[in-house]
Amino acid sequence: MKRLLIASTSTVHGKAYLEYILPELELFFKGVNEIVFIPFARPGGMTYDEYTERASLGFKKLKIRVKGIHEYENQIEAVKNAKGIFTGGGNTFELVKQLYDQKLIEPIKTTVNKGIPYFGTSAGSNVTGLTMKTTNDMPIVYPPSFDTFGFINFNINPHYLDPIEGSTHMGETRETRIQEFHKFNAAPVLGLREGSWLEVVGAKIVLRGTLQARLFLKDKTPIELDTNTDLSDLK
Amino acid sequence: MKRLLIASTSTVHGKAYLEYILPELELFFKGVNEIVFIPFARPGGMTYDEYTERASLGFKKLKIRVKGIHEYENQIEAVKNAKGIFTGGGNTFELVKQLYDQKLIEPIKTTVNKGIPYFGTSAGSNVTGLTMKTTNDMPIVYPPSFDTFGFINFNINPHYLDPIEGSTHMGETRETRIQEFHKFNAAPVLGLREGSWLEVVGAKIVLRGTLQARLFLKDKTPIELDTNTDLSDLK
Repeated sequence: MKRLLIASTSTVHGKAYLEYILPELELFFKGVNEIVFIPFARPGGMTYDEYTERASLGFKKLKIRVKGIHEYENQIEAVKNAKGIFTGGGNTFELVKQLYDQKLIEPIKTTVNKGIPYFGTSAGSNVTGLTMKTTNDMPIVYPPSFDTFGFINFNINPHYLDPIEGSTHMGETRETRIQEFHKFNAAPVLGLREGSWLEVVGAKIVLRGTLQARLFLKDKTPIELDTNTDLSDLK
Repeated sequence: MKRLLIASTSTVHGKAYLEYILPELELFFKGVNEIVFIPFARPGGMTYDEYTERASLGFKKLKIRVKGIHEYENQIEAVKNAKGIFTGGGNTFELVKQLYDQKLIEPIKTTVNKGIPYFGTSAGSNVTGLTMKTTNDMPIVYPPSFDTFGFINFNINPHYLDPIEGSTHMGETRETRIQEFHKFNAAPVLGLREGSWLEVVGAKIVLRGTLQARLFLKDKTPIELDTNTDLSDLK
């Protein structure tokens, strides 16, 4: 039975890395003492080692050891033998490119579908959806495909941002961007605000955290969903 | 001798579509009474006809007729015979996908390099650079390549946005995104604020408008460039 925590962000304003979600992670990774960390998204361009160090510090309080997937001689074997997987945020294009280049898409799918817990933040959450076509990131590298894991039957827009009132900037709002997505694609898009996450247990998907999330369906007016909304049937 | 106007935006806050740049366009398109409009970027998902209508209204004061490229039976011939080209903003991924799908990349390169004036706004400016890897847009469709026209030897970031002071949002700032780009790419990136444009005449490239632009070079601290700065040697 697959189990995922799909978080909008690793960090909320004013708190340390992962701090806001630690109580949830403690339950989620109960009985797991080591996880494989996928640092490919390299936020700010940091190295795999630097990023793995950051993730390790985040998990220190839970006494969970974090090992970067780049530290393994055979990354596919590392995924197959993982007790838990954490994919960190950063640039979704580089993350997806590396997942394809290292041939990890299918191994991670298989591992997660057999019940190994998967935790994602930001870009690591984008890839749990059907495609990465609703990422906010800059296309700094060209991945071989925009298709992602599809652990859920819709797309995530992490760090969902409401229009800034009184803004004079003429760039598109997040809502406009997602509505443009729906001119070319049918998949629902869930705008997850920072501090929200999805809890996936088997076929059950529930919105968690204290905030509402914004759901975009093709050709419909967007709607606000309260926390604890059941999204199992969304597709 | 190639001639381009590469504008950050079509519209500045509080003014009508193209209004702020009309005096410049009048000089730029002097002697031209009809231009071919490329509406592929479809802002907000509007149709080609709707977008062409908008562009026509923008050029009405200059008595320049605007014809959408989709109205021609043979789009490649339309480019070859164009007296001027205007590529409008919207979604850069869809724009680039269509430019490749319709096999227009090489014809437009040839036409512009032989001296037909090219005006771009936003996404239409992104594509004048080496690649579209510094667009702000959402990857709603998968283009066959991120390579673009390369009329200038660097990349544009249109709608350049300074960090919002006091923001509690944890998503990356524009500057962070461009610095991530430089972890994987060497090309200079010019952050063009709304109301700025580049004037290209042959090998000469000059920053125009009233604002400064922000120049990002790999492994260097970003710098502010004053209007009228000569960028001809930037590469």
